[in-house]
Amino acid sequence: MPQNPGKLISIEGGEGAGKTTVLQAIRECLEQAGKAVVCTREPGGTDVGEEIRQLLLMPGRSIDARTELLLMFASRAQLVNALIKPALARGDYIITDRFTDASFAYQGGGRGIDASDIRDLENRFVGIQPDLTLLLDLPIDQGMARAHSRGQSLDRIESERHDFFQNVRVAYLRRAAEDPQRIKVIDASQSAEAVVSQVLAAIHAWLPS
Amino acid sequence: MPQNPGKLISIEGGEGAGKTTVLQAIRECLEQAGKAVVCTREPGGTDVGEEIRQLLLMPGRSIDARTELLLMFASRAQLVNALIKPALARGDYIITDRFTDASFAYQGGGRGIDASDIRDLENRFVGIQPDLTLLLDLPIDQGMARAHSRGQSLDRIESERHDFFQNVRVAYLRRAAEDPQRIKVIDASQSAEAVVSQVLAAIHAWLPS
Repeated sequence: MPQNPGKLISIEGGEGAGKTTVLQAIRECLEQAGKAVVCTREPGGTDVGEEIRQLLLMPGRSIDARTELLLMFASRAQLVNALIKPALARGDYIITDRFTDASFAYQGGGRGIDASDIRDLENRFVGIQPDLTLLLDLPIDQGMARAHSRGQSLDRIESERHDFFQNVRVAYLRRAAEDPQRIKVIDASQSAEAVVSQVLAAIHAWLPS
Repeated sequence: MPQNPGKLISIEGGEGAGKTTVLQAIRECLEQAGKAVVCTREPGGTDVGEEIRQLLLMPGRSIDARTELLLMFASRAQLVNALIKPALARGDYIITDRFTDASFAYQGGGRGIDASDIRDLENRFVGIQPDLTLLLDLPIDQGMARAHSRGQSLDRIESERHDFFQNVRVAYLRRAAEDPQRIKVIDASQSAEAVVSQVLAAIHAWLPS
């Protein structure tokens, strides 16, 4: 038996990409396959992580880009040590709405922080990578239109300019190109049904038989 | 004229060492010498830093040691970029109640995090060191008795065990021994008057004439 029988799956993507719908579909699919499933999100997922999330997303606050990066990793370190590592050790499947790739995309691509600083935090304070990452990719305007149509007010990061999200998208796609074995790009511009069906095909192809 | 005419002074030390009294005395001394003085503290000192402080010090919360370290550096990065660097550029004297040495003492010595992880965060996210550090050193029991006699309830970090504070004290003293030019050890077991008089002597000896 392998030492680390659990698996970590991350869902990545910009605003309005449909991460929540996809996460639910994967959860059902894995539960039907008899897996114990834990769902979580970033930033957040633990008590202290959810408080960090509030601090990070509250609109109108002035937060230095490097402070934002360190807060993201503080939330991530707590999530890894308090929730993900114990769940992996039990053999659970963990599905997380965002993980370290999001820091490379948002704080790296979006805010312009050097990738070496992010990689160093990843090595020192995270130490694990997802077994599978699904990147829900769609044009910025389409994603923003979907996010607006939800009728919710935008959080601090969602209120950034078009350029910012273009840079986030590019950084996500570059990561996928560098690591195609782990990161699967899903065309999220289609209908929700079509997106879910692509995602489930990717999960079935990946699932250890 | 030097490029960086301001100066950064940090006050370090355990619980009940008298940091607040010392900080006020230094402020008055520098103001009398005609300096523009800014006082701040860690964690905290900025809007987002004060919220991080609340999150860190609230009793009863479970926070992983490495999450604690990242939160300390998130607060510090914000303080450096939003307050300290602009004040140094104006030529101000900044006095801070704790700075990076505190992470080496509390998260390093106290929590056992490897110094190389802390040094790496310092290099990547702080980039400056105090020009002068005053380490208020006193026996743990005496410091705790003073802290208790204030009648305030203890915060999450103040509620640690005796061992923890012993390790913090040792780590502080080792840093002072490694960098005696910058870090001056003050015997804080004496009366408040005697401590202040030692501190002001150190300030006068250091002040550029």
